[in-house]
Amino acid sequence: MREVFQQELADVQGRLVEIARLVRAAITDATKAVATSNVSLAERVIDGDRLIDERSLALDELAIEILARQAPVARDLRIVVSALRISASLERMGDLAAHIAQVSRYRYPGQVGPEAIRTTFEQMGAVDVEIASKLVELLATQRIDIADEIKSDDIKVDALHRSTFDILQNEDDGVAVIDATLMSRYHERFADHAVSIAKKIEYLATGDWHQLDWQQRDAPGTAE
Amino acid sequence: MREVFQQELADVQGRLVEIARLVRAAITDATKAVATSNVSLAERVIDGDRLIDERSLALDELAIEILARQAPVARDLRIVVSALRISASLERMGDLAAHIAQVSRYRYPGQVGPEAIRTTFEQMGAVDVEIASKLVELLATQRIDIADEIKSDDIKVDALHRSTFDILQNEDDGVAVIDATLMSRYHERFADHAVSIAKKIEYLATGDWHQLDWQQRDAPGTAE
Repeated sequence: MREVFQQELADVQGRLVEIARLVRAAITDATKAVATSNVSLAERVIDGDRLIDERSLALDELAIEILARQAPVARDLRIVVSALRISASLERMGDLAAHIAQVSRYRYPGQVGPEAIRTTFEQMGAVDVEIASKLVELLATQRIDIADEIKSDDIKVDALHRSTFDILQNEDDGVAVIDATLMSRYHERFADHAVSIAKKIEYLATGDWHQLDWQQRDAPGTAE
Repeated sequence: MREVFQQELADVQGRLVEIARLVRAAITDATKAVATSNVSLAERVIDGDRLIDERSLALDELAIEILARQAPVARDLRIVVSALRISASLERMGDLAAHIAQVSRYRYPGQVGPEAIRTTFEQMGAVDVEIASKLVELLATQRIDIADEIKSDDIKVDALHRSTFDILQNEDDGVAVIDATLMSRYHERFADHAVSIAKKIEYLATGDWHQLDWQQRDAPGTAE
């Protein structure tokens, strides 16, 4: 029974890694679609989100089956419940990558946001891609030093998010400001979900349940 | 054992209702704070979010304890897993109400967004308050006709959300457009989470697991 359970946990882990790879491809392509106004790439990201949703749903069903058949307790139970939450965050990260691609598609053949914001978007996109790569690595290896790196990267994304408001407040093109505000918010939330996953892996590794903040956090984005 | 389990499920349900009541108070006060530029009310919502977080975390711990002690299967297991997901959505709804209050606080003693958007915000706020009230009722009674009402209300919020872009695209005040874009997004996400909860209750009632979309959905908001 124990051996079967360990195999099932390995299966869960493998599937999480696989979904994280899909999310990494989605944010990589979405960022590229925005930077190059590539509408077919944007559409590929939007269509591809369906696969992330399906994989995430299948993983949830597997986790619930494991709970039913194995009735895990203590740390084993926490692992399975965490897998359900990590799956939800990955699914959401896929949605956010698709939202970024959608903004790009709406503006095609034009570009998203005012000229002054483009470099910032490229930077936010690059950090989000980096975060997604680290997430794949973290889920595959459970090395908690990677969790710390993701948290540092999130601080960079937050700083870039705040900087967009400084840039946008002097813009007078309503549509460009709307797009850019949402785009920045999507990038920021993408990084938040990665941090939420990183914290779960960290606490599974350290076993420090009582410190565990199961919930995701974000700072509201607004022009201060 | 069965009787204890039923008591524990009733406890879980009661706690979900209690958190939903806190969320209803938060969105009611946040909407009022925006409409009246009431900074002390805004601060009450922001500070009050801590209580929603704590209650939600406590409920999660209870649900995990129930999984460990009772090892529920089939429908019982789905109920406990759903409670974990409903808790996460309620916690997020509390965050979104706090974000709305924060935008109001930043602008104090000024108002949020351009003049032209104010009526729309009052309408979105009123529907979100209505949704939160229905959510309390739905969680308390499990009457699935209320789930349908919440879905209809969400369609109203989505329409209002789209209408904000029509209003904002002609505005030239960057800060006002940023604030209004985020505010509208927060209201729209608030309603999305309520629909996500409504769907879970509905499927628990109908037992139609295979149709169950465990994941939350949203439409990206952008000016089309």
